[in-house]
Amino acid sequence: MLENNFYVALIHYPVINKKRQVIGSALTTIDLHDIARASITFGVRGFYVITPYEDQAKLATQVIEHWTKGVGGKLNPFRKKALELIRVSKTLGDAVKEIEKERKEPVVTIATSAKKVSGSIAVEGLKEKLRSKASHVLIFGTAWGLADELIDTCDYILDPIFGAFDYNHLSVRSAASIYLDRIINGR
Amino acid sequence: MLENNFYVALIHYPVINKKRQVIGSALTTIDLHDIARASITFGVRGFYVITPYEDQAKLATQVIEHWTKGVGGKLNPFRKKALELIRVSKTLGDAVKEIEKERKEPVVTIATSAKKVSGSIAVEGLKEKLRSKASHVLIFGTAWGLADELIDTCDYILDPIFGAFDYNHLSVRSAASIYLDRIINGR
Repeated sequence: MLENNFYVALIHYPVINKKRQVIGSALTTIDLHDIARASITFGVRGFYVITPYEDQAKLATQVIEHWTKGVGGKLNPFRKKALELIRVSKTLGDAVKEIEKERKEPVVTIATSAKKVSGSIAVEGLKEKLRSKASHVLIFGTAWGLADELIDTCDYILDPIFGAFDYNHLSVRSAASIYLDRIINGR
Repeated sequence: MLENNFYVALIHYPVINKKRQVIGSALTTIDLHDIARASITFGVRGFYVITPYEDQAKLATQVIEHWTKGVGGKLNPFRKKALELIRVSKTLGDAVKEIEKERKEPVVTIATSAKKVSGSIAVEGLKEKLRSKASHVLIFGTAWGLADELIDTCDYILDPIFGAFDYNHLSVRSAASIYLDRIINGR
């Protein structure tokens, strides 16, 4: 993290619905707020909101501008500072290209999932990787999670979050917050 | 946690606004979902939504019943299971009385705050206390946080969550998720 080489991405396509069909999801504006606030708290360099849908990208931009350039930021400068981290991109590939340009280092992509997948890495492993100069993007899915076709393109997949029992249906807002805390403060 | 003696409470009055005035806040229905989902993930026994306002209590009940008795629970049984943890009370005192009746043990109240307060305890200290038979309630404030008049009635106050820098304006949904993860899985 000292390298300032860490990004977050929130995917709205391709994700899955509860029948495990690949879909595109609508923007949930509170995701932007909560994940931006967690991102700035834990030292994330940029938070990519990924949607291929023009109307959804426009909505994201309107929310961001309300808080970064409009009246929102005057009322709440802390919120302004958080939402300034957000960048809107059509695809994960576009975001990766932008990060490559920004830091001129290779980009490592890390998918998250609520399911245990063979070969997934622990947070400790990710922390180790973050000590390199490469850029790293931690990728979250909306709806019922990332589609396999996106996970398959990622370099790593992170262990799921487990709690006291076998229930693991956290909101993406909660999951992102917990992963970032674990990466910065954690075990 | 093995004792099943751990509760969460979300306070809508008394909390503070950004001018540090004591106010009552309106319900944010996504708080109910996110904190209930985190609560069931991390083995919380009951999640109290505290509001003295009848219309807000009615709204909370409508949301809960939609998911626990209505069509919501049929569409998403995981959400049903989470929202079944929610109980609505007028005051923290009422919730404490109900918990006393339920477990017939003393109730220990633990406030949370984004500010460092002298004498606050670390999560490790709370984990130690949870090994006793007493019931424990971890208390979160909506709006800009719990009012001092409520914090002063609590037995303990928990250390704030810090990240990479000095920014600490997480959403209550993120803060609750991170604290529960730390208590169950953490350092």
